[in-house]
Amino acid sequence: MYKVDLNSDLGESFGAYKIGLDSEVVKYVTSVNVACGYHAGDPIVMDKTVAMAKEHGVAVGAHPGFPDLMGFGRRNMVVTPAEAKAYTQYQVGALAAFCKANGVPLQHVKPHGAFYNMAAKDLALATAIAEGVASVDSNLIFMGLAGSLMLTAAKAAGLRTASEVFADRAYQADGTLVPRSKPGAVIHDTDEAIARTIRMVKEGKVTAITGEEVEIAADSICVHGDNVSAVEFVKNIRARLEAEGVTLAPLSEIV
Amino acid sequence: MYKVDLNSDLGESFGAYKIGLDSEVVKYVTSVNVACGYHAGDPIVMDKTVAMAKEHGVAVGAHPGFPDLMGFGRRNMVVTPAEAKAYTQYQVGALAAFCKANGVPLQHVKPHGAFYNMAAKDLALATAIAEGVASVDSNLIFMGLAGSLMLTAAKAAGLRTASEVFADRAYQADGTLVPRSKPGAVIHDTDEAIARTIRMVKEGKVTAITGEEVEIAADSICVHGDNVSAVEFVKNIRARLEAEGVTLAPLSEIV
Amino acid sequence: MYKVDLNSDLGESFGAYKIGLDSEVVKYVTSVNVACGYHAGDPIVMDKTVAMAKEHGVAVGAHPGFPDLMGFGRRNMVVTPAEAKAYTQYQVGALAAFCKANGVPLQHVKPHGAFYNMAAKDLALATAIAEGVASVDSNLIFMGLAGSLMLTAAKAAGLRTASEVFADRAYQADGTLVPRSKPGAVIHDTDEAIARTIRMVKEGKVTAITGEEVEIAADSICVHGDNVSAVEFVKNIRARLEAEGVTLAPLSEIV
Amino acid sequence: MYKVDLNSDLGESFGAYKIGLDSEVVKYVTSVNVACGYHAGDPIVMDKTVAMAKEHGVAVGAHPGFPDLMGFGRRNMVVTPAEAKAYTQYQVGALAAFCKANGVPLQHVKPHGAFYNMAAKDLALATAIAEGVASVDSNLIFMGLAGSLMLTAAKAAGLRTASEVFADRAYQADGTLVPRSKPGAVIHDTDEAIARTIRMVKEGKVTAITGEEVEIAADSICVHGDNVSAVEFVKNIRARLEAEGVTLAPLSEIV
Repeated sequence: MYKVDLNSDLGESFGAYKIGLDSEVVKYVTSVNVACGYHAGDPIVMDKTVAMAKEHGVAVGAHPGFPDLMGFGRRNMVVTPAEAKAYTQYQVGALAAFCKANGVPLQHVKPHGAFYNMAAKDLALATAIAEGVASVDSNLIFMGLAGSLMLTAAKAAGLRTASEVFADRAYQADGTLVPRSKPGAVIHDTDEAIARTIRMVKEGKVTAITGEEVEIAADSICVHGDNVSAVEFVKNIRARLEAEGVTLAPLSEIV
Repeated sequence: MYKVDLNSDLGESFGAYKIGLDSEVVKYVTSVNVACGYHAGDPIVMDKTVAMAKEHGVAVGAHPGFPDLMGFGRRNMVVTPAEAKAYTQYQVGALAAFCKANGVPLQHVKPHGAFYNMAAKDLALATAIAEGVASVDSNLIFMGLAGSLMLTAAKAAGLRTASEVFADRAYQADGTLVPRSKPGAVIHDTDEAIARTIRMVKEGKVTAITGEEVEIAADSICVHGDNVSAVEFVKNIRARLEAEGVTLAPLSEIV
Repeated sequence: MYKVDLNSDLGESFGAYKIGLDSEVVKYVTSVNVACGYHAGDPIVMDKTVAMAKEHGVAVGAHPGFPDLMGFGRRNMVVTPAEAKAYTQYQVGALAAFCKANGVPLQHVKPHGAFYNMAAKDLALATAIAEGVASVDSNLIFMGLAGSLMLTAAKAAGLRTASEVFADRAYQADGTLVPRSKPGAVIHDTDEAIARTIRMVKEGKVTAITGEEVEIAADSICVHGDNVSAVEFVKNIRARLEAEGVTLAPLSEIV
Repeated sequence: MYKVDLNSDLGESFGAYKIGLDSEVVKYVTSVNVACGYHAGDPIVMDKTVAMAKEHGVAVGAHPGFPDLMGFGRRNMVVTPAEAKAYTQYQVGALAAFCKANGVPLQHVKPHGAFYNMAAKDLALATAIAEGVASVDSNLIFMGLAGSLMLTAAKAAGLRTASEVFADRAYQADGTLVPRSKPGAVIHDTDEAIARTIRMVKEGKVTAITGEEVEIAADSICVHGDNVSAVEFVKNIRARLEAEGVTLAPLSEIV
């Protein structure tokens, strides 16, 4: 039987600023990554987001990022491993408090934006983040880019890991994502994106942009709730996965 | 047998900014209140401060404040009860992560600066903070101004409470502190300050600025590590308390 | 001939966060108040907003607020006069840089949110803000609540002043606004709001919530661009004012 | 006749956090670079620092940095040229306000920390900063690392430039600094550091770490006021320069 998790970033609003169709997308996913106040989110938003996830029976993860609200955590910053570890501990701990207050387990941690992208390729950074997670709670699942150094580091830190794949992104022959700056990086055809995703889930394979067949683990699929068409895509991919006999389930039932 | 806790605010450094003689004052106190990144402190500082407390066998508490780094949390801000509760949860959770990582229990929570002063007189605010603490961990001790609404609120939230007294501050007939803006608010004579403190601990009484005898509970004495003479005072008061047969012990052994 | 300014708060977006229909409302107003990075706005947003105002021939003002991004500058904070003055200088100077870079004069300063509301009733605070403005550029116009201490302070600081009125708010017999917490504070009927505004502009009078006729100066009318119906209201009030023979003009042509 | 400027970073305190012996070092330098609130400094500190510079007859410059208070602006961040330009405009404008309020001309701009180091080697970043400066005031002097791309970019933007040298740093054969991570990067011998500096000022030459003679322009020498021995060094280098017939003068009298 095939099983996969659908995850989305939630709780990215801040103060008077609203972003994302959280109350829509939460209906269709199985896990959510909640911003922790560094690159997005604030305590009120965190609390409401965890409560909303609980109401919909969706699993909660922490989504720590760089301390860069102005850049939404999308800009590379050169921090030391000690800083990366401590920033992770701080943010995971803060979100864990809202999980306790809402009576919800904290399921996983997925780094955000530039923190995620840099850690995918930098073992020292990935190790720092993974050790930060493990030091707070060694039962947490570390979600990271399939095949990346994040998962290597998380395993070394004694954590369960979840391999994340992207429905709408092209892959290179070595299993890494085609950088957004290159042509063909984003797959705009919805049907193609869904078909590729189903194959990643059922066969563990994806065709690279250069034609090779690449093995890929797909524990969780990243989807977005930024706008109406993104939410429409989530509905579609969920329906198609179920029609193909794939069970949607939170990470804790998969890894 | 008389027992009292000596507490001090630690971990108020931030990034390149160093403040407080933490490594000195930690030698003489029994509990420390660690800043949580809102009014002071950062993740690296929090981690080091918890590790330092552990090394010295000193109990750790969270010291949440207003989100006002520029004002060091000393400026009154009008926040809603929901905001006060969520800010407390966030900061307590963040510090709890460093306690877990260092293998140290989180003993108590003491609000900082304006958060403390406003909550002492505002039951709605005090209740929000107390409920925030209880929602994260109902075993935490709430430390607040002796006789204030903070302790009323904390008891109502089901928390153990610790009454804090100030060695160098004058009291009014109703048991509240003489505001710093008024003459005589601060007791500059070290011997007098220590003698008053010993009496608060042993007899549960203090003489008000207007001459009345006031009953006061003294579970913990607030001391400072801002400068060399402050640390000298801590050494003195500790020695004098011990000479008077008062045992110094962390809050968890007192309340 | 009757003349009045229509002003709206613009440039309140921050990083990835978009707020307000700036590109719509800018078409109908004559002056804009641009957030300066403390309660809202960032350097990229400030630059774009000034450029947009220039493109539409609309006058630019600085909109300084409290350093409280999480509260959008709407929460009262107790700052010293020295802090209020320096925060004003900082923010006005920052916006002035974007005006210079875009070849646009800086016309006025209007405090934001809680900074505005507190200064309306606190002469020391109002004086600090006014002196901050005057110290940077004594030719700037200070826009504040009609009849409030802000205008008293601004005149004393040697600044030209502009009296601001609110189309959708009820007034008390002493010329102050009915607090939002009281019934009848907001006038929901669009026609009534517009009729009252026209009378304030042409007759300099408004009927208080308790029935008295109150004298009021109306140099500028505050309008909003938060949502589609707010922009619709701006279009309507502009059209009705023009139909009534009132000329819309920026503050610099009025005071 | 030989002339050189001695510059130091001032105004890096923030709120309750004090850093640097500003009131000591200001006595011996001819120009100061004042932090602008992004990586360090706050409005109160900026105002006091400009007033202190005025009192000592020392020229004032803006010292813009990355928006990274937690990292003191010392961590590389990947920002776009548009962001770098806008951050520069914002910070220069903010400091210019305090110069106006104190009746002091703004003399120069020197980027801080990682902003400086990255711009020295990245022409797009350097150009963005230089254009930001020029857009606010084309009479400002741009101070940057001698021989670096910052000066190339500043000249292209139509600005006067000042070449900065470091007394205590080793140089490579291409005129760039030996990275701090390499052995020999810092010259610890005070006499040697001073002798090298005098040669840079009088002969325009420095001996590279690999032995070559390198041509170098020395309009300004960077000195520090972090601690007592740093201030002692500033006194010494100033006295030695004067003994060697070198006149100390602010940048505006040199370039």
